[in-house]
Formats: sequence, structure tokens, C-alpha cells
Amino acid sequence: MEPGHNSQPKESAAADAPPGQEALVVFTPSGKRGRFAPGTPVLSAARALGVDLDSVCGGRGICSKCQITPAYGDFAKHGVHVAQDALSEWNAVEQRYHDKRGLAPGRRLGCQARIMRDVVIDVPAESQLHRQVVRKSADARVVVMDPATRLFYVEVAEPDMHEPSGDLERLGNALASQWQIGQIEAGPAVLRKLQPALRKGGWGVSVAVYADHRSGPARILDIWPGLHEGGLYGLAIDLGSTTIAAHLTDLTDGRVIAAGGIMNPQIRFGEDLMSRVSYAMMNPGGDAEMTAAVRLALNDLARSVSAEAGIDPALIMEAVVVCNPVMHHLFLGIDPVELGQAPFALATSSAQALPARETGLDSLNPEARLYMLPCIAGHVGADAAAVALAQAPQESDDLVLIVDVGTNAEILLGNRERVLACSSPTGPAFEGAQISSGQRAAPGAIERVEIDPQTKEPRFKVIGCDLWSNEPGFDQATAQTGITGICGSGIIEAVAEMRMNGILDAAGLIGNAEQTGTARCQPEGRTQAYLIHDGTARGGPRITVTQNDIRAIQLAKAALYAGARLLMDTLGTERVDRVVLAGAFGAHISPKHAMVLGMIPDCRLENVTSAGNAAGTGARLALCNAGMRAGIEEQVRRIHKVETAIEPRFQEHFVNASAIPHATDPFPELARVLTLPAVSHNTGGGGGSGARRRRPR
Amino acid sequence: MEPGHNSQPKESAAADAPPGQEALVVFTPSGKRGRFAPGTPVLSAARALGVDLDSVCGGRGICSKCQITPAYGDFAKHGVHVAQDALSEWNAVEQRYHDKRGLAPGRRLGCQARIMRDVVIDVPAESQLHRQVVRKSADARVVVMDPATRLFYVEVAEPDMHEPSGDLERLGNALASQWQIGQIEAGPAVLRKLQPALRKGGWGVSVAVYADHRSGPARILDIWPGLHEGGLYGLAIDLGSTTIAAHLTDLTDGRVIAAGGIMNPQIRFGEDLMSRVSYAMMNPGGDAEMTAAVRLALNDLARSVSAEAGIDPALIMEAVVVCNPVMHHLFLGIDPVELGQAPFALATSSAQALPARETGLDSLNPEARLYMLPCIAGHVGADAAAVALAQAPQESDDLVLIVDVGTNAEILLGNRERVLACSSPTGPAFEGAQISSGQRAAPGAIERVEIDPQTKEPRFKVIGCDLWSNEPGFDQATAQTGITGICGSGIIEAVAEMRMNGILDAAGLIGNAEQTGTARCQPEGRTQAYLIHDGTARGGPRITVTQNDIRAIQLAKAALYAGARLLMDTLGTERVDRVVLAGAFGAHISPKHAMVLGMIPDCRLENVTSAGNAAGTGARLALCNAGMRAGIEEQVRRIHKVETAIEPRFQEHFVNASAIPHATDPFPELARVLTLPAVSHNTGGGGGSGARRRRPR
Repeated sequence: MEPGHNSQPKESAAADAPPGQEALVVFTPSGKRGRFAPGTPVLSAARALGVDLDSVCGGRGICSKCQITPAYGDFAKHGVHVAQDALSEWNAVEQRYHDKRGLAPGRRLGCQARIMRDVVIDVPAESQLHRQVVRKSADARVVVMDPATRLFYVEVAEPDMHEPSGDLERLGNALASQWQIGQIEAGPAVLRKLQPALRKGGWGVSVAVYADHRSGPARILDIWPGLHEGGLYGLAIDLGSTTIAAHLTDLTDGRVIAAGGIMNPQIRFGEDLMSRVSYAMMNPGGDAEMTAAVRLALNDLARSVSAEAGIDPALIMEAVVVCNPVMHHLFLGIDPVELGQAPFALATSSAQALPARETGLDSLNPEARLYMLPCIAGHVGADAAAVALAQAPQESDDLVLIVDVGTNAEILLGNRERVLACSSPTGPAFEGAQISSGQRAAPGAIERVEIDPQTKEPRFKVIGCDLWSNEPGFDQATAQTGITGICGSGIIEAVAEMRMNGILDAAGLIGNAEQTGTARCQPEGRTQAYLIHDGTARGGPRITVTQNDIRAIQLAKAALYAGARLLMDTLGTERVDRVVLAGAFGAHISPKHAMVLGMIPDCRLENVTSAGNAAGTGARLALCNAGMRAGIEEQVRRIHKVETAIEPRFQEHFVNASAIPHATDPFPELARVLTLPAVSHNTGGGGGSGARRRRPR
Repeated sequence: MEPGHNSQPKESAAADAPPGQEALVVFTPSGKRGRFAPGTPVLSAARALGVDLDSVCGGRGICSKCQITPAYGDFAKHGVHVAQDALSEWNAVEQRYHDKRGLAPGRRLGCQARIMRDVVIDVPAESQLHRQVVRKSADARVVVMDPATRLFYVEVAEPDMHEPSGDLERLGNALASQWQIGQIEAGPAVLRKLQPALRKGGWGVSVAVYADHRSGPARILDIWPGLHEGGLYGLAIDLGSTTIAAHLTDLTDGRVIAAGGIMNPQIRFGEDLMSRVSYAMMNPGGDAEMTAAVRLALNDLARSVSAEAGIDPALIMEAVVVCNPVMHHLFLGIDPVELGQAPFALATSSAQALPARETGLDSLNPEARLYMLPCIAGHVGADAAAVALAQAPQESDDLVLIVDVGTNAEILLGNRERVLACSSPTGPAFEGAQISSGQRAAPGAIERVEIDPQTKEPRFKVIGCDLWSNEPGFDQATAQTGITGICGSGIIEAVAEMRMNGILDAAGLIGNAEQTGTARCQPEGRTQAYLIHDGTARGGPRITVTQNDIRAIQLAKAALYAGARLLMDTLGTERVDRVVLAGAFGAHISPKHAMVLGMIPDCRLENVTSAGNAAGTGARLALCNAGMRAGIEEQVRRIHKVETAIEPRFQEHFVNASAIPHATDPFPELARVLTLPAVSHNTGGGGGSGARRRRPR
């Protein structure tokens, strides 16, 4: 017998059939095959062969998870002719189920239909327990559903005064014999429900069993009388410094049934992470205030996504949280003060697996479990680990650079041989902060910019409108939102376009109207600004890119580039094969403009891709597949950490990288795609260190 | 190297010494011996040999747990002559410790003193880690200290930006290398304290580590900067239906540093267990009310014993709770309704090991752990398991009957071959309830009674006074408390003395004044009562033993006897070798009177002993030695459970056992000690079924 085989086939009629008359069974799509005595239930045969056929009720004809489709006719490939009576006749249990819920034409219940003759049986995708969650993005990982929390229906022996034993112990015996689940445990909250559920369910109950990738007993998280049909859910939470995103996920099939996002309420204690660390240092109890604020927000978010999906939040059995190290500590209730100063020591870097209520998440099931991915280093958090999980650089044949752009950029570089990680303090400029007309990515924000090479006139798109600003109907289409500012992707395109069109020189200096040939360059104090849009006539703002904006973007991109370059130095390479832009922001960056700006090293443009919110994807993967938790924990141990704060070469790269593009990197690919003007407006002063030439090394 | 050996000897001078000049070291009292290079610290040698020498600081000369006494002179038994310079000279670390705290004459610190020549070294009892807890009672088990929670001092590596790792992970490495502790985990409450403690302690911290008999990572329960000298404590709780007793125990040496008891506040919901089950059945939320009441009481008790001992209750790291099944469920928050009706199914019979705060015990350390012994059956609880742990019938060569008398009596019978258990519903009569003049055992209660064979006059003792009532000074000595009633042990002696002196016949009928020859027999309604004390002249009560009292005692003792007899039948024996009376009440019962009454089967009187509060002792054993938890869990699985409620022979024994003594048991031993009068006052009616003769079987 194979390991997947349980005791149920023994109950079948199989034992009655004479040997030698066994029927051949071929399962598709797996191709697994075997011979079974006539009368063997399809579910039993599937289990004996290790075919992935789901069942929650253990073959009692009540859960309908084991639906299969018999195929009739000749199957040359398998050498089988399937007669119409290859399976036993449609039975009363199937009829009852069909009357109640409906079975699609051709479908049978695998636990009821018995094999009578040679047969080919198809297991449809929705009947596969470990079905794949197919994701849209081409480079995304395929995930097989294998969640830590699963639902089992069991029939439990009634108590016997002659052989006294507890109800929990008999439930444990039932789970062991019917589902091959080893030792179990249950907390007081479940023990309280146990006896009424068993009696109300006539000794048939559904239990949510949690068994993660660690050793130890399986834990009963909840129990329901009879077959629980309300589903089990998990919450994947991407806890960012600025925004918090949650994906409510069906733990049986991995579907996202609702998603929601809110601002991180800690913003009132400080816009960026270091100002929150300072708040904790300067205000006794400040860390506890911030902890309470973020926990409150997460509970609200859990309730709101549950309401959106129309489910009871008590059906959320697990949460996976990914975040940067400061958020990690504040969420767990740890003062983040050590993260604000060298040597940037984390209280703990290991993955956390604990009861969710211990972190104040009390809106979920009372027994819900929380998993936090491991942190990689003091500045490289569980969010970076989640990106690594989603992007799997350790499985890449070519050398991939993964950049998650935010207030801190997390950077991973590697391939099958080795993976390196660092973080770089880019600051909030890429998110539209510290930019004169900057704003968050929201309706009304300019997100795309093009400058005409001849006229030097800009055109742009705003979030919420598909038209360019010079297309008919644009004014009407944006009348509602207005044109309110410029967001991160907009400022990157604006600066890159200014550089491509000679408005900006390599040192980052904006030329005046005379130098650039456009009246849109206008003096602002002692420097120049480029006017993108003047909305004052309609009561809107005047949106310009100022010299200070250029400097902020130069600092941010130099930090990002220096981090990537430091990893390349450590690995001893001058080129990367692929660049992946991760993060919600990364999804909106134009690769060409990012390269013109010098945010990323030179790379074939078609090899620069966006991975969307890779950290959030990593959280979902860890939610849907417990084995992936073990995988990323092991992988994080192997990642080589590089601390930018103490690395002299980081400073060197940073200084050399403020030119646009930067001064230390040859750009053959960029040169192939476009040619940058060699203009220089440098009229003495203002060029700054960015103007330095490449230093010998 | 032996398993007990750790890395420290490598640091010693041992490696420098040429081989062949190694010194012989003999440790007493263990007799373990070995040869070591001169310069080896005594602690290292002890560890290499597996000698039980304590150390909390790991040999850093700060905890002083490793004190030893070198012996000088000739030791014929060991063939050693020990010179005065057999150990290295008294060093600065020892001098510093001596100046600060004082070392007894002759004592050295084992981590500082180095072996230079052949030497005999005595390890005093207080330096043994696994020292025995010696108990007074002759038949008590000797327990070796091996608590689940222990204190360790460790020096943790400082963080290194080049090799980023969390503080917890470096603490784990230190515990592994310095104390051979495997994987660890810590909850948010400890993570919050971790970083400040490490920095305040200069990277030296004390940690309380919990590792019980189950698999899984060791858990850090608390952390202190530097060497924690406040101690670690545990609370052994005997949660009775009527009273709750707690013993605050030092987890390093097993000493009870404070004890306290309070009434179980659930009494207001019902005097006995079944009335509490009824309360839960009749009142929605009634079980939750009772749960809240008992948890509140336990928290109060924990605080009051801590205050008595002068310790912070946050130093209580563990609690062990023993109780009957109904209290077990009510304490865990489980509705006990199933325990009130056949088949008396427990929600869980397994031992419970969980965070104490999950059961509402929030007065202890926030991370404190709770252990509850397993229940044996629906009527035989964790208290009976604790009695089994304390009395270890499975290790007895002779056949022992252990009776824990309370509202329910738990009865164990067995020896090395087999152990049986049952419970018997004795009712509260033995505790003074349902007795006309009955009361709890408290000052003023009559606890001893003697009747003069000639005059039939009684004399008695009351709790709180050492004088008999006919001795001079008794009235003055009892003026304060008064004489308020008769407690359980008093009523047993009174009834037995009445029987021995012809006031009561075998059927349990009280004779009248004429039949008995004493005017103390006075009519009360249609039956007689025997007057023990008339306090009405001084405003006190009139204390009598009425015919109804006799009937209540007859029912109780018949139930008790029937349970014991049922176990004897099941084992196929007519005799037991020993009887142990357990329980707070058991300690006060006179074996002779218990036997006259027929509470227990015939047995040599000197083999009837009291074990005091054996359930409480069992709780303390489980607290002091985690291995004993595994032992009793295994033992409980092996105990054969007998359910009295469904056993026809129980009813039969019960009916036959109401005679005094009973009608089914030959009493050769009792006959040897005393002769009962063959009186019968039976004047038609009143004798009841108790008068039945022994039935053929």
C-alpha cells in the first residue's frame, strides 16, 4: 500500500472479487494507473494510487469535493476501451446530492461510483486538493495549494462508559484513522465548543486543523457540527510604512475574495520610518502608541474586507504579515529604537508563528494563527523575504536584480548560485513626498509625462483618465478630479524626459529658457523650474519640476543605484541579465525612464519587468502553501546580507551616481535605444558632486 | 567526551599539562572518578564525569551555585592521599564573592578552584542541581528536582553589522553552546524585554527557560539583565469542590515558601458538584459565571500567597492544577453538563499544558505555563491522578487500596501488576454536611469522640484545643471558639464509638435509654438521638447524633466501601495488604474508627495509614519534576477504569454495606483488635436493608 492509502478501501467490495478479474483504472490528467477489484470506489482507487482527488467528508457522499468524470470510448494512448457500464450505476447518495445541489452532466461522486470494468477517469481541476493557483503575470510562480489550515469532516466514536475517554481524544482517534493526522491539541476556546458540536452534529463534525511546516501536534482551531460549508479564509497583509494592503484569500482554492487597503495610521507619528523610531525614542510609551494604532488599523481592515466579501471574520483562520523591520517590531510590540542606530540589531530575525491574538489581532477567529516571514537583516525585512519568495531569485538561471522601491528600497541580486540582499535609504521622493508638486498616487495625479523633442512642450496623463492632456476631451474627463500634482512615476518620467530633451544636463541642472529653447523654463529663485501644467486659471495648482525636485530625485536614485551597484561589486559582476521592479510603485515605473534616470544598472530594456506587489504576493504564497514557509526560512538563512551603512563603497557609488544617468556605469543598452544629448548648462555652481567624473578604481 | 560535558574544559589549562601527570579526582557522595590534567576546573571535571554539580552562571564565578568542599588527608576507600595543595589557591574571584556574600569555611567555588593533584571533592546537597526533596512522611516518594522551568545565565554575542542576526537568535546560540539547550522560542512579551535586558546587562542575561516533557522548542518565559537573584516559583493548586489550597514552591529546591487556602466561591452556585452541574444546566451562562468565579479566586489566592512569601507574583512561572472532572471543566471554561449524565463524557481526558493566561490566570508571570494532570475517567479526575502520582500504587509490591475521601471518593487499588480506579458518590456527609450538628473542620468543631464503656458518657476534643472535654481547663480553653458542631472525623468517631459501646446496633439503629443504659439516648420524633454535648446553658448549641445522621453516614460509608469492594472483585481479591487514607480529611480519620464503621475493608490496623493531602502532593511533584508528568500520563493510560454507575455489583455491595461494620466482609483483623457487641435494638422497622445477611455469591 502506498502512503496516501487509508483504511477505507478495506470497507469496499474489493475484497470480495476474485483475483485476476481486476479492472484497469487510468486517471487523467496525472496518467496514474492501477488494477483494482471490481466494486472498488473511485476515491479509494485514487488514494491507493496517490492521485490528487479532494475529499473533506472522507467518502461519505456529503461534501461533493471528489467529483470525477468518467470517459467512455477508446483511448489509444492508454490502450483502454471504456464501456458505458465501467462504473457502477448512479446511486441514491448521488441522486440526493444532485437533487439538493446539482451535479454537472457527466459528473459522478468519486466516493460513490465504483469501478466495475476498465475505465479512464478524469479528475477536474476543482476536484484536485493540491490544485494550482494560476496567476496572470507571466513570470509569477505557480503555487500548489497546501495551506497550513485545512478542513476535515470526521465521524467520531460515541463515548463508552466501559472504556472512558475524552471527546477530544476520540476526535483525535477519528482524525488519525480517517485522515492520517497525528497528535492533536486544542485550546480552551475549542474545548468549550467541542461537546455541543459533537452532539449537535450527531457525532459528525468538521474541524479546522492547523499543521504548519514546524514539528509539534496539529492544532484544532475551530469545530462545527456536521459539514461546515462556510469556508476557511486567510488574510495576506502587506504592512507598509505608508499603506496597508490586505488580500482575503480562500484557503481551499487560493482565490482572493476581497482586497482592501488603508493608510498606515502611524503616519501621524512620522512620515518615514526613522521619524517613527525617533518618536519612540523621544516619547516614553511612544512605541506602544504606535503599536496600538497599527493593530487597531489591521483589525478594522480585517473586518472591512470580511464585510466586503460577506463572510464572518471568525472564519479567518490565518494571517500572514510582511513588512519592513521597523513595522515588524512595532506590530509585535517591540520598541524599534535599536533599528535606528548602528549596529541595527533586530530583536528577532526568525520567522514568527504564533496565535494571532498575541499580537492584538482579535477580529479574526479567536484561535487564528499568525505567520510573519523572517527578516533578512536590520534594514532588510520580512517584506524583502516575501519578494524573494515571490520572485525566487535562487531559482533563476540568469542573474536577476530585484528592486522593491519604497521609502527604503530592498534590493536582491542573484541566481541559482548565490543571492545577495541589501536595503538602501532612498527616502520618500519616489513616492511623491519632498517634491514641490508631489503627491501620492491618487486620482488627479500626473503619472505619465512626455516632452516633444521639437517644441519641448509636455503632455501628460493623470490617474483616473486614459487620455493624454493634448487629446480632445481631456479637460472634460479630468474636470471631476482636477489636476492636483505629480506622483512618483510621473516625476520619474518628467525628469527623464527633461534629460532626454536637453532641458536638464547630466549633472542635473535645469537650463534657462535661452539654453533650452523653451519658455517653460522659468526662473525660481536662483535656479530654474520647468512648467508642466498651469491650472491657476481654473483654480488649480501650477505644477512645475524645480531644481530642488531634481536634487531630491538625484539623491533617491543615487541611493537606489548605489545599493544595486554594491551588490554587483560584491558578486563581482558589471552586468545583470534581468531587472525586476517590485512594489506597488514599481508596477507603474516606465523601464525606459528608470534607465534614463539611472535608477537601475544598464540592462536590455525588454528584460526590465514589473512584478507588481511582489511582497504582497509572497504573503499570499506563504498563506496558500505552508511548505513555502520552510523554503523561504531556509533561503533567508542562505542569503548573503550586505549592510550599506558601513560599506565605504556604498558612499562612493552614491556620490558618483547623482549624474543622470550615472557616471560609473557604461550604458550600451541605453545607447542602443536612445541617445542622450550631451548638453551642459553648467554656468558655474549648481553641478555639485554629481558632475564628478568616474574615478579610477 | 560524555554527554554532560560542555565546551568549557577546553578553556582550562588542562591542554597544557603533559599526559601521564593527570590527577585523580574522586567526587563524593556519587563516587564518580576520573583523571584530569592539572589546572582543570573542578566544575569542568564534574561535568565531564556527569557529576551533579549545579551552576547557573556557567562557570563565571558569579552565581556561587557550584560550591564544593575539598577533603584533605588519606581516603582508604578511594586509595587517595589528598595534599593541602591539591586544588589551586584561593583566587580573586572567590575572594570577591566571599567579601560580598560569604563562603562557608572550607567551601570553594567549583568553577574557580582547579585540580592540581589527586583530590577528593564533596558536592554538598545544596550544590546538587538534581537534589532530592526529602519529605517527612515515611511512605512519601522521594522527588528529584527537575522542574520544567529553569534559570540560566548566559553571555550573548553582541550584534555585528557584517553578520546580521537577531538578538533572540544570538541568545539561542548562547543557550545552545553554553547550556546545550536546543531550539528556542519567545513570545511578544519576552521579545519586548529582550533588547533592553541585553544592553542593560552588558550582554549578560538570566533567562527562565521552559522545556517540559513534550517535544517542541524550549520557550523563554522571562529575561533579566545580569544574574537574576529573585528566584523562580511555581504554584501547586489543589482545586477542590469546597476548598482551594495552593503551595507556593521554590522551583530551584522544591521548598514550599508559602501556603494558603480559600473557600471555593462556586459554593454559592451549589454545595456539591452535581448541584453545580444542575446550575449550569438550568441557567444559561451559568457555567461561565462559575468559571469566572473560580478564576478570580485563584488569582486572589496566587496574589495572597505571593504577598505572604514576599515575592512578586510575576516570578511565578508555572502552576499545576489538580481537581475533579467537574472543577476541571469549569476551570478550563467548559460547560460540565455532560458530566452530569451518562455516559459521563469528559471534553478531554488528556493532561493540559498551556499558557496560564489562557485560563484567566493573569496574576502570574504573563508567560507562565499551566499544567493539569490527566483525568482518569468521567468521575475520576486529575486529583485522583495526582494521588496516584504521589502514592505510586504501580510501584507497590503489596496490594494497596488508596481512598481519597471527599464529596466523591476516588479509589485506587493495585500493585506492580495492575492498578484499578473508580469513584464513588459518598455525598457530603463525611465533610460534616447533611449531619444535624455537622460543620466544616474549623475551630470549635468536635473532631475526636470517646465513649466510656462503663458509664456510656462521651468525652471529646474540639479543633483548636488539645484538651479532652473532661480535662481541667477545657472550658476556659474553648471559651473563645465555643463548641459549635461536629466535623467529619468527629462524626465518624462518634458513630463508631456508639457502635462499640452498644448504643448502636449492627443495623445502625440507636437504642433508647433503657436498651442502652444511658440517659443520653433521648427520643427525637419516632427515633432516638445520642447527646454528645449540651451547650445551651452557655448559649451554645445542643450537639447530638440523630438517627438521620446515622443513616447519612451509613449511606456514605456504604458507597465508599462498595467502590473499594467493586475494585477488589474486579481484581479477584478478598483482602488488601495496605490501606492509605488520602485527602485533607483522610489525615484526620482514626483508622480504628474507620474500620469499626466499615468504611474500609478489613486490613491490619498498622497498615492503615494517612497520606495527608496526596492530591496536593501530586501537584507539587508534577511541579518539581517534569519527567513525572510523562510518568503519570503514561500511568493513567494504563489504569483500568471501573465505572460504578453502570456496575450492578456496585449496587449490590452498596445495599449490603450499610450494616456497621458491613455484612459482606469478614473482619479477622478488627476482631483481633476489639470485639463489637452483638446488641440489637431492632424493635421492628428502622433496620432497613442494612440488616440483611450476607448473600451467597
